[in-house]
Amino acid sequence: MIHVITHIERTPKELIDQFRGIGTATVHEASGRKGAVDCAIKPISRGVRLCGPAFTVQCHPEDNLMLHKAIERARPGDILVASVQGYYEAGYWGGLMATSAVARKIGGLAIDGSIRDSAEIIKMGFPIFCRGFCIRGTTKTVLGLINHPILFGGVLVHPGDLILGDDDGMVVVGRMECEEVLEASIKRIEAEKTKAEKLRAGISGVELNQLEKVFKFLGLVED
Amino acid sequence: MIHVITHIERTPKELIDQFRGIGTATVHEASGRKGAVDCAIKPISRGVRLCGPAFTVQCHPEDNLMLHKAIERARPGDILVASVQGYYEAGYWGGLMATSAVARKIGGLAIDGSIRDSAEIIKMGFPIFCRGFCIRGTTKTVLGLINHPILFGGVLVHPGDLILGDDDGMVVVGRMECEEVLEASIKRIEAEKTKAEKLRAGISGVELNQLEKVFKFLGLVED
Amino acid sequence: MIHVITHIERTPKELIDQFRGIGTATVHEASGRKGAVDCAIKPISRGVRLCGPAFTVQCHPEDNLMLHKAIERARPGDILVASVQGYYEAGYWGGLMATSAVARKIGGLAIDGSIRDSAEIIKMGFPIFCRGFCIRGTTKTVLGLINHPILFGGVLVHPGDLILGDDDGMVVVGRMECEEVLEASIKRIEAEKTKAEKLRAGISGVELNQLEKVFKFLGLVED
Amino acid sequence: MIHVITHIERTPKELIDQFRGIGTATVHEASGRKGAVDCAIKPISRGVRLCGPAFTVQCHPEDNLMLHKAIERARPGDILVASVQGYYEAGYWGGLMATSAVARKIGGLAIDGSIRDSAEIIKMGFPIFCRGFCIRGTTKTVLGLINHPILFGGVLVHPGDLILGDDDGMVVVGRMECEEVLEASIKRIEAEKTKAEKLRAGISGVELNQLEKVFKFLGLVED
Amino acid sequence: MIHVITHIERTPKELIDQFRGIGTATVHEASGRKGAVDCAIKPISRGVRLCGPAFTVQCHPEDNLMLHKAIERARPGDILVASVQGYYEAGYWGGLMATSAVARKIGGLAIDGSIRDSAEIIKMGFPIFCRGFCIRGTTKTVLGLINHPILFGGVLVHPGDLILGDDDGMVVVGRMECEEVLEASIKRIEAEKTKAEKLRAGISGVELNQLEKVFKFLGLVED
Amino acid sequence: MIHVITHIERTPKELIDQFRGIGTATVHEASGRKGAVDCAIKPISRGVRLCGPAFTVQCHPEDNLMLHKAIERARPGDILVASVQGYYEAGYWGGLMATSAVARKIGGLAIDGSIRDSAEIIKMGFPIFCRGFCIRGTTKTVLGLINHPILFGGVLVHPGDLILGDDDGMVVVGRMECEEVLEASIKRIEAEKTKAEKLRAGISGVELNQLEKVFKFLGLVED
Repeated sequence: MIHVITHIERTPKELIDQFRGIGTATVHEASGRKGAVDCAIKPISRGVRLCGPAFTVQCHPEDNLMLHKAIERARPGDILVASVQGYYEAGYWGGLMATSAVARKIGGLAIDGSIRDSAEIIKMGFPIFCRGFCIRGTTKTVLGLINHPILFGGVLVHPGDLILGDDDGMVVVGRMECEEVLEASIKRIEAEKTKAEKLRAGISGVELNQLEKVFKFLGLVED
Repeated sequence: MIHVITHIERTPKELIDQFRGIGTATVHEASGRKGAVDCAIKPISRGVRLCGPAFTVQCHPEDNLMLHKAIERARPGDILVASVQGYYEAGYWGGLMATSAVARKIGGLAIDGSIRDSAEIIKMGFPIFCRGFCIRGTTKTVLGLINHPILFGGVLVHPGDLILGDDDGMVVVGRMECEEVLEASIKRIEAEKTKAEKLRAGISGVELNQLEKVFKFLGLVED
Repeated sequence: MIHVITHIERTPKELIDQFRGIGTATVHEASGRKGAVDCAIKPISRGVRLCGPAFTVQCHPEDNLMLHKAIERARPGDILVASVQGYYEAGYWGGLMATSAVARKIGGLAIDGSIRDSAEIIKMGFPIFCRGFCIRGTTKTVLGLINHPILFGGVLVHPGDLILGDDDGMVVVGRMECEEVLEASIKRIEAEKTKAEKLRAGISGVELNQLEKVFKFLGLVED
Repeated sequence: MIHVITHIERTPKELIDQFRGIGTATVHEASGRKGAVDCAIKPISRGVRLCGPAFTVQCHPEDNLMLHKAIERARPGDILVASVQGYYEAGYWGGLMATSAVARKIGGLAIDGSIRDSAEIIKMGFPIFCRGFCIRGTTKTVLGLINHPILFGGVLVHPGDLILGDDDGMVVVGRMECEEVLEASIKRIEAEKTKAEKLRAGISGVELNQLEKVFKFLGLVED
Repeated sequence: MIHVITHIERTPKELIDQFRGIGTATVHEASGRKGAVDCAIKPISRGVRLCGPAFTVQCHPEDNLMLHKAIERARPGDILVASVQGYYEAGYWGGLMATSAVARKIGGLAIDGSIRDSAEIIKMGFPIFCRGFCIRGTTKTVLGLINHPILFGGVLVHPGDLILGDDDGMVVVGRMECEEVLEASIKRIEAEKTKAEKLRAGISGVELNQLEKVFKFLGLVED
Repeated sequence: MIHVITHIERTPKELIDQFRGIGTATVHEASGRKGAVDCAIKPISRGVRLCGPAFTVQCHPEDNLMLHKAIERARPGDILVASVQGYYEAGYWGGLMATSAVARKIGGLAIDGSIRDSAEIIKMGFPIFCRGFCIRGTTKTVLGLINHPILFGGVLVHPGDLILGDDDGMVVVGRMECEEVLEASIKRIEAEKTKAEKLRAGISGVELNQLEKVFKFLGLVED
């Protein structure tokens, strides 16, 4: 069995860059409502964002050995996406690892567990999405997998998929669907601008979304 | 069955305005310790406050159809109070709905579920209390109820009741009890000022609250 | 049975002062990975810190009688460490108690439950670690214990132990181990500075931690 | 304030007796889907059932004082319905209390917390619905309320309401609605018998419930 | 989009029959530790077992429309595997549906939510794995998917995969891997018999598993 | 550091035997309400009991290496008390280990995690208290501790302490306190027999416990 796969296909950088600044909710809708990660995985501080290709890591519970290998093998811009198999209360990542990741221009970390040294990392500006903070350390003694598909916050993530995170949460877009989703996202943004203007002008959402038909079909009774 | 009731009695505006700036903990105590909403329902950002009459909405799990109807029917200043029957992980409310609510001068939203587009909504200044953020959208296909009494965060809310929210949480005051509760709140604030001065001067809380009697009755032993 | 013990041995002030500014994760590692408190107990606002000797309080669920006694008996600099036996959703501590604690120069509060009047207390600058905010009040009618050993967030705390809290969480250091842990912490900080420089220079964590030996022993296969 | 109300209106015995043997799910449907209690409150052993008028008790967390008063004041056949305000991990009820309740012919206990001496109580045949078993005792020192309306497992229960429990869970029927609900339940049982026969004969539920119309309206596509 | 796929490849019956009686833990180990379903999904009563090909169903939260379609389309022996997207507290399945499923010789139901009429269904002998019991009904108004791959209790299930359940829990085996896993399971059972004999004879598990080497490498110190 | 301590003082067998048959709730009360283990740790099947001296084991999350060592070192009658540091969803113990434990006459297992092969183990009659069942296996690669004091379900357990478990839960009695607790338990049982007779004769618990004084002091008002 090959534990570490290093040659992966990534969503192209030009495509990724066009996702920066687009909201996760918009991209989720544009994806046909796929790829929404469990809401409990949040940015370490308001305004922190993730945007880059997934570099997946499967750790053993309370062990961060594979994260060290991942930092060594990831490319600039990659987002480490680490599953820790449901053992959340350990600090799998800390200040030194963030220092190294910044030095190697890694794009960020999304982890289904806790991290520590949060104040220092926020100051450093290294973007992290995680379940929380925990000072308990981990062992470095059990093997895991790198760049195998993983389940992350209820979503199946393949290496190279687009990872997008903002204050609302995280969304994963399949590598081959990025182009289509980008297009749909841009259209959606345009449509929402028009809708927002109409709503600002006082038109109701019921009118705008033609919900009266729905209410009628369902037999709504108003007093 | 009438799904949507639009003619409701509201706590009078003059009364409501006098509650602005009073803390929820004070009002809760002044109410005889009634009406405290489940602590997990929090402001979307520190400092956000709610103060207005309840406009209640009962949604089906993962469906926000009735919220659209509610925006259309609510009056300026109303607080939409929406129960979603225990299915929290969906974004029942987003940027466009907030845009419309602001245009219609709705006073805010309290929802027993999640919302999305949080950054945009915080910027807009539209006040929301919710369980969290979630990018997953909802359907718009199932009927619910408007301005029927609802259970919200463990409290029975009637339309027109006073809704008050601050950093500590939310409290609901029955419409007919608002006057009495306001009076008791003001008295309590006065009393607390006097107490605070005494405590600042070094008198202990045990003295101030005459707890020595209690300790004696209970048989406290100190070394 | 003696409920309230007032004569306790405290970690010496000179020692405590040297812990200020050291991170909890560092101290936890320097302690041999002991004393980490449950991650759900957090500072009331980013940047709030605790550093002082434990003054332990055992309250009955939904009753804060013993906290009033504790404020009266604690010495300047003491950290009240209060267990509430698993009943979290009550505001065991509020603005008036904080006012009194500030007047008496108490060093802070760590409580395994909720508090209220959070905005006022943050403004006051009184440091608190707690599970959350809750406007529900408590009774003042049931006895508890002061300065008996308590279980706090999964850690056995003896009166006088060092309590340290920062954005990452809380750690408890046994009174007799503080000197040794301080020394180990300082060494660790030095070592981490050297490591950080190397990592910044591009050396990988795998190299720095000599993990290749571990990977080899475990039979890692890379493509 | 009156803590203990003893003169309450109860659902008539003749009516109650007709509910024995009817399933909770049926009654819940016949009630217009109202009154379903939180599923975590279960019978202490398979097959245990509750059927009787509610005698409501509001206890303080970790205190069972009012349950003793309730045993003294309840009438034969009454179901004690006790809320303990969210503090579940205490044994509010044990073998001696069950012995007394049996002696006084009390109909059963529904409690939103834990109990102890479960083996002995099951042997005795006294029916209990609870959240679980816990050996920790309680205090007997704080007042509560008897026969005030209470929130129980998410349902507002008035004294005298019908309480029905079986392996599926619990349902509460308003005292004034019992007659109507009984009738609707019996009709439903008849209808279900007919339906069951058709289903046994091989007719599908889609046919039986005329769901093809729904599928058509919703635009179902089958391969 | 095609909602309902009816033509699926199933694990062959001859293969399935050989899995009957093999324990889930054994099969899970023989699969290379893949396919274990979330432990909270349990048999409705001790001793209930599932063994058959998956017929997957994706329901909307609190809606069981697609289950009716599934009963109509499934073949004898199929196990309905239904995801309800995280809304557990509703009775998605009841006595009438079980009656119909029995009439159509469906092999069982695995559902990531609750069911009702449990006593009646246990008596009927229709095997179900679920999260619990709940008397609350559902709507029949929202479309879902049939025989698309689904996430079920943390496992990706494809239609036709082998579903196996016993008192310990559930495991899913990929259709194409069943033959290999069966072989490995049988070998494992043989090996375990030999091991059990040795253990019964007094040989320790440390010896049997040659763990002394591991302890030595890890530097175990015994007094 | 010594990982495995084998020479421990045990509660004497004669003393232990006298605890068999006494209920955990009684012993807990007789201990001054100390030693109650978290209620979520339950017998694997109704009627299973534990009674013996603690042989403590500290495992790494998702690793059962030390349990194998423990089976080898424990004496007949010992109860293995194993903490797994909060990672519950793994089967740390199975049929082969139970076979070996039975062969070596080990008294039982109390584990703060899950086990597997439950049906087989129940048939074998080996008594286990655990959080649940899980088919996922563990590694055997990380060291832990044997017969060091451990936190188990919220209780500090020292090797040799008395472990008692029944349908209500588990209680731990300090080795040096067993004699005193046994005596108090027997007295309590006698007293309860007398009380039960009085209650059966119709005397109320209020009378029996002289609660009228309490109600009077607290100012109870009855209608």
